[in-house]
Amino acid sequence: MLDLIRSLAIPNTTKIVLLSLDGLGGLPRPETGRSELETARLPNLHALAAEAACGLLRHVAPGVTPGSGPGHLGLFGYDPLVHQVGRGVLESLGIEFDLRAGDVAARGNFCTVDAAGRITDRRAGRIPTETCVRLVERLRAIRLPGVETLVEPVQEHRFVLVLRGAGLSGRLSETDPQALDTPPLPVRALEPAAERTAQLVNAFVDAARPLLADARPANMVLLRGFDRRPDLPRFPEVYGLRAAAIAAYPMYRGLAKLVGMDVLKTGRTYADEIATLREHWQAYDFFFVHYKDTDKAGEDGNFDAKVQALERFDALLPAVRELNPDVLVVSGDHATPSILAAHGWQPVPALLRSRYCGADPVTAFTERACAGGTLGTLPAHHLMPLVMANALRLTKFGA
Amino acid sequence: MLDLIRSLAIPNTTKIVLLSLDGLGGLPRPETGRSELETARLPNLHALAAEAACGLLRHVAPGVTPGSGPGHLGLFGYDPLVHQVGRGVLESLGIEFDLRAGDVAARGNFCTVDAAGRITDRRAGRIPTETCVRLVERLRAIRLPGVETLVEPVQEHRFVLVLRGAGLSGRLSETDPQALDTPPLPVRALEPAAERTAQLVNAFVDAARPLLADARPANMVLLRGFDRRPDLPRFPEVYGLRAAAIAAYPMYRGLAKLVGMDVLKTGRTYADEIATLREHWQAYDFFFVHYKDTDKAGEDGNFDAKVQALERFDALLPAVRELNPDVLVVSGDHATPSILAAHGWQPVPALLRSRYCGADPVTAFTERACAGGTLGTLPAHHLMPLVMANALRLTKFGA
Repeated sequence: MLDLIRSLAIPNTTKIVLLSLDGLGGLPRPETGRSELETARLPNLHALAAEAACGLLRHVAPGVTPGSGPGHLGLFGYDPLVHQVGRGVLESLGIEFDLRAGDVAARGNFCTVDAAGRITDRRAGRIPTETCVRLVERLRAIRLPGVETLVEPVQEHRFVLVLRGAGLSGRLSETDPQALDTPPLPVRALEPAAERTAQLVNAFVDAARPLLADARPANMVLLRGFDRRPDLPRFPEVYGLRAAAIAAYPMYRGLAKLVGMDVLKTGRTYADEIATLREHWQAYDFFFVHYKDTDKAGEDGNFDAKVQALERFDALLPAVRELNPDVLVVSGDHATPSILAAHGWQPVPALLRSRYCGADPVTAFTERACAGGTLGTLPAHHLMPLVMANALRLTKFGA
Repeated sequence: MLDLIRSLAIPNTTKIVLLSLDGLGGLPRPETGRSELETARLPNLHALAAEAACGLLRHVAPGVTPGSGPGHLGLFGYDPLVHQVGRGVLESLGIEFDLRAGDVAARGNFCTVDAAGRITDRRAGRIPTETCVRLVERLRAIRLPGVETLVEPVQEHRFVLVLRGAGLSGRLSETDPQALDTPPLPVRALEPAAERTAQLVNAFVDAARPLLADARPANMVLLRGFDRRPDLPRFPEVYGLRAAAIAAYPMYRGLAKLVGMDVLKTGRTYADEIATLREHWQAYDFFFVHYKDTDKAGEDGNFDAKVQALERFDALLPAVRELNPDVLVVSGDHATPSILAAHGWQPVPALLRSRYCGADPVTAFTERACAGGTLGTLPAHHLMPLVMANALRLTKFGA
């Protein structure tokens, strides 16, 4: 699909804005029968929906709840089942670690082991981040032959381990047995070319054990999700777009960077992001703008906060419309229904407005209304080709 | 897809009920313009539809009419185009024959041949089942070198032939030329490993000819649909569900057994089946409950009988709802429109009710109403992942 689009892409001067509301989709609150989108006052979004083609996006597969990585890759036009990104890589992106080609990254947990070395708590009682920072400092003392060993704290018990050097492989089993009362597992190579990397990781774990012996409850490490930075087709090259990402949160900046977008410096709020958009309007063809508040409120199970987050987003929509993009898309990377207090599998409302988006009966930007839109329920990675077409940036297929 | 779901499945205590109305979907009767579902009084089903997410299931592909085998495999989450089950195997399941791994089964017909051995009736005038039983007794006298030969009567002119032994292959052509005035064909091996099996089957046919010579109109046999029992991924392992099947008809018990469900002993009626459901409620996570009457009436072309069958089903729906399943699904394996008097290719209404199924505008369980539901028209094998998600039994994909 990406190859097809790449072969059809043609230059134009049209401008595209993709507004991604993290965790956009919701579910009705049982008390009212109305979802977050159906509860919020969203005059600007509903007016835009009335002008747009609407539908629902499914990011991975029916019933499958997307993480933020696959969710955004889908929005960028990459089938997340084809382009898989390991947990270690996503964790590195989340702290804006400068992961390089060939690096192998793993997600690390500090954990608690008993005197016999058996795991008694896989998360070391969720130690404070300050403790994590201090213990990571100890792990940085570890030296392995022929590779650079990089350890970075994340949050609470979580850290990232990166091995940097030639000839490394991410095809490794995990040390986390995902069970208690059993010791961490040695890492095994899942392909012959990973033998040396497996030995290096096992040497790291062996070296970590004495360094942490007195640090109970965080007296051992678990490593999983080994992977190299995936070699994804570059977004600007596939689509022929000068592409910029505007995101206050590191994870989303990291994902955009992974596909080759320029990441613009911005502030902490969505208003800052919109200001950044305005500032760089002339320099790019495509803008990915990320809005985090909807997901945060949903993850907290806070229905009212999610409603308010939607209303804050709505209030800034006119500022985007003033720029008069040729194609304006509003959608999200996955649902985060407040009543689930977690990511959900439900397809996510999407709207696409352009001069050529066609007549559509939907006049409200809600899950229920978008289900009846002309976009239908479509795989998220089919959206970008539609965006490109609406930007008059795809030539026809066949004569 | 099954591998993906297997990798995401997590344990939970939620309970799932899948009610399958055989041949559920229908078509409007020309006199009234209303289908069977639109004609029947179905207060409980319509009320459930109003609370549920609705849609239409397509079991194989657009325009393709599913048999009961592919129809149910689709409901169980297996793509019927990937997991094909030979006719001989399905016929064996239909009589609850204990087909073992390695057995090769064929569907047999008694037929009529003239003095020159040319077929004059492919079904031997649909001889009574008693005659079939008597003639099968004769065929049981046939002995073949190195394999066990099992012959079982089915109904009218139909029987099952099973070869049991080492090294057999089901990759054989058929003896039935599907035409008159031509003799039955010898079986050919469709792969080198099937040569010996082809010889054995041809020897069986040669031995059958003299044994049946005086039994006109059933004086010869036709064999088709050779296949081994498919090695399907086991339903309880894929989904991590303790799964039970409740079905009064042997074919559906056989299909459930084929995917590794426990088949519960039950009575002859749907009320018996519901009693069985209640009785085993604690012991399982997933129940497949089969209702046959809708299909029978549809196959008979009896519109009113199908309407009544739907109403009988509706009357027992409250007994299921009293059990308070976390996920309740109502759908079917294929359409059997009364005006077709046969299986149909039309997509089949489906509803899924759970706490997290989302808002949906559909308030009636009919073909027409479900076409506007939030499930859309989806491949039947995408239903189980949705069921699993709604049962909170799938973890997210990617971080």
